[in-house]
Amino acid sequence: MPTYHIEMFEGRSHEEKRELVAAITEATCRVLNCAPGAVDIIIHDIPRHNWATAGKLWSEQSN
Amino acid sequence: MPTYHIEMFEGRSHEEKRELVAAITEATCRVLNCAPGAVDIIIHDIPRHNWATAGKLWSEQSN
Amino acid sequence: MPTYHIEMFEGRSHEEKRELVAAITEATCRVLNCAPGAVDIIIHDIPRHNWATAGKLWSEQSN
Amino acid sequence: MPTYHIEMFEGRSHEEKRELVAAITEATCRVLNCAPGAVDIIIHDIPRHNWATAGKLWSEQSN
Amino acid sequence: MPTYHIEMFEGRSHEEKRELVAAITEATCRVLNCAPGAVDIIIHDIPRHNWATAGKLWSEQSN
Amino acid sequence: MPTYHIEMFEGRSHEEKRELVAAITEATCRVLNCAPGAVDIIIHDIPRHNWATAGKLWSEQSN
Repeated sequence: MPTYHIEMFEGRSHEEKRELVAAITEATCRVLNCAPGAVDIIIHDIPRHNWATAGKLWSEQSN
Repeated sequence: MPTYHIEMFEGRSHEEKRELVAAITEATCRVLNCAPGAVDIIIHDIPRHNWATAGKLWSEQSN
Repeated sequence: MPTYHIEMFEGRSHEEKRELVAAITEATCRVLNCAPGAVDIIIHDIPRHNWATAGKLWSEQSN
Repeated sequence: MPTYHIEMFEGRSHEEKRELVAAITEATCRVLNCAPGAVDIIIHDIPRHNWATAGKLWSEQSN
Repeated sequence: MPTYHIEMFEGRSHEEKRELVAAITEATCRVLNCAPGAVDIIIHDIPRHNWATAGKLWSEQSN
Repeated sequence: MPTYHIEMFEGRSHEEKRELVAAITEATCRVLNCAPGAVDIIIHDIPRHNWATAGKLWSEQSN
């Protein structure tokens, strides 16, 4: 019954998400020896202006 | 002080949400014997392309 | 596919939890018109020393 | 490694969020004696029609 | 910056968790093309008496 | 109505938590101009063997 919540920056393509959930599910079932149907994955797309590291929003981080 | 987070597919109407939070709060207070004002409920609407079961996004599940 | 996370003070009995998840699931299926098997509920028991309101831990709230 | 999730009503300005994450990070590092780079903060903007207290959505609370 | 929260039944060994986080991180970096250091994974061990499906706690599910 | 979830390594003292929630609440009310009673903070103590960065559990990170 592993349930995943993934928070990541918004902007990932549908194709990347499709590949990601397939890969995560495969890895989970391989390691934990569980059925794919037991794995749920929920993605939260986070805008850069809603995520901060070191006290600074990522929308304002300069490179 | 029960606090609920509900993740469900986006698309539910305002009326369904209104009924849902009233029913959940009533059930909680009845079972846990707490005051309605102690119950907080936060709903996260999840797009089908952000939720996967069995390694496949729900936006791609065929029936 | 509604998935619930409930955070509440630790100390509720097994019987209260059993009644709570049954009541929440029943209310959810009635309002959203979904199958019981689609409803997952995860409870997080929170110690009073890990929950604060108004800047004060509940383990230190006086009545 | 403190990681914060903040759920609050949508509508806060970029400037308020910038100040909030700076203040939260400063307070965290001061109290816990950790480096700013160890603090991550993720904000979830919640519409008032997705948050209920006492069984009533905030979009329907009258003052 | 992907951050994972994994909720799963308590009881998994340290070795299983070590393999799981390595596999999840590897899959994430491969698909999303990000650095391993950007991936954080937090596991929440959930007792079976705190997880319900279909209105029934898993501690009470019979096989 | 800001609600905070803080995930941090287990091991912080009661005194540190008391100071942290007071400081976070003060900072929140100052920046967002809200009443202290509107701020809820829930702390999740995470064991180092349940938190990974860069694919490695913190219980196994060497310094």
